[in-house]
Amino acid sequence: MPKNRLEAFSDGIFAFAATLLILNLVVDQKQPLGPQLLELWTSYAAYAISFITIGIIGANHHPVMHQIAHVDRFFLMVTVLFLMFIAFIPFPTRLLALDIQTPDARAAALAYGIILTGTATLFNVLWRYAASGRRLLRHDADQQVIDGITRSYVLGPFIYGLATLSALVSPALSAALYAAIALFYVLESSVFGRRA
Amino acid sequence: MPKNRLEAFSDGIFAFAATLLILNLVVDQKQPLGPQLLELWTSYAAYAISFITIGIIGANHHPVMHQIAHVDRFFLMVTVLFLMFIAFIPFPTRLLALDIQTPDARAAALAYGIILTGTATLFNVLWRYAASGRRLLRHDADQQVIDGITRSYVLGPFIYGLATLSALVSPALSAALYAAIALFYVLESSVFGRRA
Amino acid sequence: MPKNRLEAFSDGIFAFAATLLILNLVVDQKQPLGPQLLELWTSYAAYAISFITIGIIGANHHPVMHQIAHVDRFFLMVTVLFLMFIAFIPFPTRLLALDIQTPDARAAALAYGIILTGTATLFNVLWRYAASGRRLLRHDADQQVIDGITRSYVLGPFIYGLATLSALVSPALSAALYAAIALFYVLESSVFGRRA
Amino acid sequence: MPKNRLEAFSDGIFAFAATLLILNLVVDQKQPLGPQLLELWTSYAAYAISFITIGIIGANHHPVMHQIAHVDRFFLMVTVLFLMFIAFIPFPTRLLALDIQTPDARAAALAYGIILTGTATLFNVLWRYAASGRRLLRHDADQQVIDGITRSYVLGPFIYGLATLSALVSPALSAALYAAIALFYVLESSVFGRRA
Repeated sequence: MPKNRLEAFSDGIFAFAATLLILNLVVDQKQPLGPQLLELWTSYAAYAISFITIGIIGANHHPVMHQIAHVDRFFLMVTVLFLMFIAFIPFPTRLLALDIQTPDARAAALAYGIILTGTATLFNVLWRYAASGRRLLRHDADQQVIDGITRSYVLGPFIYGLATLSALVSPALSAALYAAIALFYVLESSVFGRRA
Repeated sequence: MPKNRLEAFSDGIFAFAATLLILNLVVDQKQPLGPQLLELWTSYAAYAISFITIGIIGANHHPVMHQIAHVDRFFLMVTVLFLMFIAFIPFPTRLLALDIQTPDARAAALAYGIILTGTATLFNVLWRYAASGRRLLRHDADQQVIDGITRSYVLGPFIYGLATLSALVSPALSAALYAAIALFYVLESSVFGRRA
Repeated sequence: MPKNRLEAFSDGIFAFAATLLILNLVVDQKQPLGPQLLELWTSYAAYAISFITIGIIGANHHPVMHQIAHVDRFFLMVTVLFLMFIAFIPFPTRLLALDIQTPDARAAALAYGIILTGTATLFNVLWRYAASGRRLLRHDADQQVIDGITRSYVLGPFIYGLATLSALVSPALSAALYAAIALFYVLESSVFGRRA
Repeated sequence: MPKNRLEAFSDGIFAFAATLLILNLVVDQKQPLGPQLLELWTSYAAYAISFITIGIIGANHHPVMHQIAHVDRFFLMVTVLFLMFIAFIPFPTRLLALDIQTPDARAAALAYGIILTGTATLFNVLWRYAASGRRLLRHDADQQVIDGITRSYVLGPFIYGLATLSALVSPALSAALYAAIALFYVLESSVFGRRA
């Protein structure tokens, strides 16, 4: 399978999963709209967090594919599993949005965190498999760039794992951490990214 | 991230957000269909306005990307936020369609306007950031073309902002303005665009 | 707007509109599944007719774009309107599927036909505008090929218009005609297309 | 129709059908979330099986297209029918997920199997038509590769057909076979694919 078609398939999944998030926003036609639109703030927040998170993962997927010369069946299969987690994100996003202020908050925050931790882990598997011994990399791939990618992705599963576990203590803290991670990436790009 | 993959991701969001609009049209299987299909005219109108608006924004996104040589992380992040607003459009479109003839009309028209004003604002941020000091532009980008793009986009947030605020006076006026803006673009293309 | 991005946007709408059709199939979890799956035959038929119809329109869109050298704003705007009709197809498909055996059959068949007649008409406007005086065509476009395209598309609006009007006499006849048109294209390709 | 646009359309359907699968996961807001998330394991399993299956079919579609030099109308039409089955998969996936532990399990497992058997059959028709007498193949297509593709796809319809028929004996066995086929492909890639 040529690399460019795998990229097209991946971009499709990223774009569709992000766009499907909007279906999580629903109002009750029998209740006044104004107050509902204000109460939906957890849904807006969850929408924004997940959309930005998918966008960031998509943006990070590109440097990975850029370093890769060709793909083999194992890499392809890990990509399918990775995209399976990406496409799953709308479901726990809905749970987080609807339940973060209810007694179900813990289950919702755990579900959200498990999926994002799994996504981050598979992303690392993907990259490590490709980069280990430069298995799938381009001949002219810069070792410094490769090590930089490895370093910047390795923390993802731990950060999301911690945020997930914090749901056992406090679901609200967990949700705040998910938001903080997304916000960190936005700010990092805004403040530091302009220099690069 | 190469420019062409950002374009592919953006095109995916544009196309998918526009296609999802159709899910807003629902009929009650227990009521006679004929009269319902006529009463749904606000839904058809809202569908058409949003579809055309997304189509126009998508069409205007192309000249912007055409002038750009490369993208940096800040531009990427603003694009993600911009697409987050695009993908949000189906939700207030549904509200506008269902509530423009109810006491909830004001809230619906405000919600629709806020999202479109935000979209137009982020589009300007995107372009201004790229064009300011020719930061991300191609070396051969024509200054006249650049100034033309700047001029033609700068009014967007104000026009949508005005249409939004008019919802405080009259939601129907506000909805009529949203329709008029979309219609203006269609007519402008039909009547004037042919000469260009 | 470059032609290739308009093609990508169009392909996205064709693919999404076709895939969204599956959301029209629903069963009642409280009723036995087996009998329901048999009763759903009208939904399967409507799904197949619309999917094939969108596929054929998509396939016919390619020769058109192939003859075109560049696009202007008017062509772009007609394409947006044309795609707006394509993306609308899932809604009347659902009506046709659910209501063809009910007293609402006439309204459903009319709604389906109006959308398809509109789609076919806009497709002709699109092509006629591009081909008239060879306005947007490539310099090396073969006049015979152009005339062939014009001839093969000109009948579409009339055929769909007739099928639509026949709903006034008999909705079942109308639905049978929609199916026959799709089937004709499949058979034409199977039997005659192999020679070409 | 150029081959690359058919690939883009196909990739869109693959990606979109896979992403739509997530809409099958629903919880009842009025019941406690935790227990529901555990009971949903059949939905997770069905999601994973269908996502991986679509991913594998998509991955297998690429070598086919790679060997092909051009497409004719018959090939195009079979592709549309093939994609029609792909886009149908979310529906029986939902049935399998919701009904595998109910008295409706047999009907659900049969429905799922019929669609996958049909998909595998159309995939073989597609390839056989293209490869028979090297009708649509590239001049430099390697006969060994061609025979290899033919051999590896020919079993698909029989394997899925058997899994489907086994639903008559035991729906659970049938579901286990669908899972085993997907798992086999994942493991085959993980264990054997790395050598290739």
